[in-house]
Amino acid sequence: MTNTAEQETKRRRTPVVYDDGDKKTGPLEAPFIKLFASPTANAQKVTILLELLKVKYYFRATEFLKETKEPWYLKLNPAGKVPVIVDVNEKGEAFTLAESGAILLYLAEKYDTGNKFSYPQGTANHYKEIEFLFFHASGLNPAQASLNLTKLFDSENEKDIKKFTELVLKNYKLVEDQLAANGTGFLVGDHISLADIIAFPHAKVADKFFDVSQFPHISQWREKLESFEEVQAAYAKK
Amino acid sequence: MTNTAEQETKRRRTPVVYDDGDKKTGPLEAPFIKLFASPTANAQKVTILLELLKVKYYFRATEFLKETKEPWYLKLNPAGKVPVIVDVNEKGEAFTLAESGAILLYLAEKYDTGNKFSYPQGTANHYKEIEFLFFHASGLNPAQASLNLTKLFDSENEKDIKKFTELVLKNYKLVEDQLAANGTGFLVGDHISLADIIAFPHAKVADKFFDVSQFPHISQWREKLESFEEVQAAYAKK
Repeated sequence: MTNTAEQETKRRRTPVVYDDGDKKTGPLEAPFIKLFASPTANAQKVTILLELLKVKYYFRATEFLKETKEPWYLKLNPAGKVPVIVDVNEKGEAFTLAESGAILLYLAEKYDTGNKFSYPQGTANHYKEIEFLFFHASGLNPAQASLNLTKLFDSENEKDIKKFTELVLKNYKLVEDQLAANGTGFLVGDHISLADIIAFPHAKVADKFFDVSQFPHISQWREKLESFEEVQAAYAKK
Repeated sequence: MTNTAEQETKRRRTPVVYDDGDKKTGPLEAPFIKLFASPTANAQKVTILLELLKVKYYFRATEFLKETKEPWYLKLNPAGKVPVIVDVNEKGEAFTLAESGAILLYLAEKYDTGNKFSYPQGTANHYKEIEFLFFHASGLNPAQASLNLTKLFDSENEKDIKKFTELVLKNYKLVEDQLAANGTGFLVGDHISLADIIAFPHAKVADKFFDVSQFPHISQWREKLESFEEVQAAYAKK
């Protein structure tokens, strides 16, 4: 056996590991995708896409507002929020990404090469999908979060509850109209996409805030998404 | 002259026009890019990118909360907000897009083919740029907008003003840390990108809400962006 061959054999026997500082999992053998998630809508949308993509990933249940404030976690996401993904290649090189909208676009571009859950770059549907991601992230989601937080921590504040309820309803009316205009049962194009995936976990819990049955297209769309076995598998992760 | 040649000559003499229903400009000869904008941060960021790209575009000053609520405008953007772009090709086929974050990505993908103001797809910088777009659109921008609206319409509400000021400062601290860690004077990579462009118009008016000089990297970054002649040209549009 030559020296080079010996080194090669040794290299193959020595797994490449990556350590993100997480004491619960410890260093992991590369390659891997690790998702730091809590039972929040923002984390659930990423879990749904990972299930749909059928890629192997670690689901790392993460204690919200506790572990996410620890120094090793803040190195992964200085904002101290979930979700975060760490995508480590066979050489142990890690790519870390936060912000659920950005993670959805990253995973789709890298792993949805057949465009089963997204639309090809350069097409109108691709940009309409991104338009919806930003409409949701910057409009609907902050409105629903404000309503949620007010109801939880300032439940006597009727003025704000009324204001945020109206804002949430206005945004869901836009979603209802988009579903009606598109006419396929999905928000953009003719199949499930990042647009549906970003909106579903928030819509799933919207009954806490208003009567969703007033929006028939949203009600049907929500039932259809709930019937996906990958969506059910995502919600089974704890 | 053959019949086909006659038709071809007639076709060339008859300009292709596109009518978006806007009475102020009337139908326009294709191809064109039209930007509906008001003096808001969300519209200014798109104007800045169009200036940097050196593409020809119509700047359509749009009366916020008035024209944006008219039926012809709501066909372009049912949410009734600025900015909106209408990109019409030589055949008169129109592509309409709202949401400033989505418009930035669309314009960069279509017109920034040399990646002077964005990063190439598939690179780490590309996804870090998108991560920042979502951090800004979903976190910093709603926080700053909430603070702005509270100061304007509910100026006696000291509790909310304190809460939103803390949230805004927390988000700008993350921007300061990102500039410090990156070390190039830009938010991502080594040149101006969509990340800087989305954040600048909001940072430009941040002195209304807190003392920006407490963030030296942001102060320097803001001065550098203000010195771009294309940024000055964008602000000269009314």
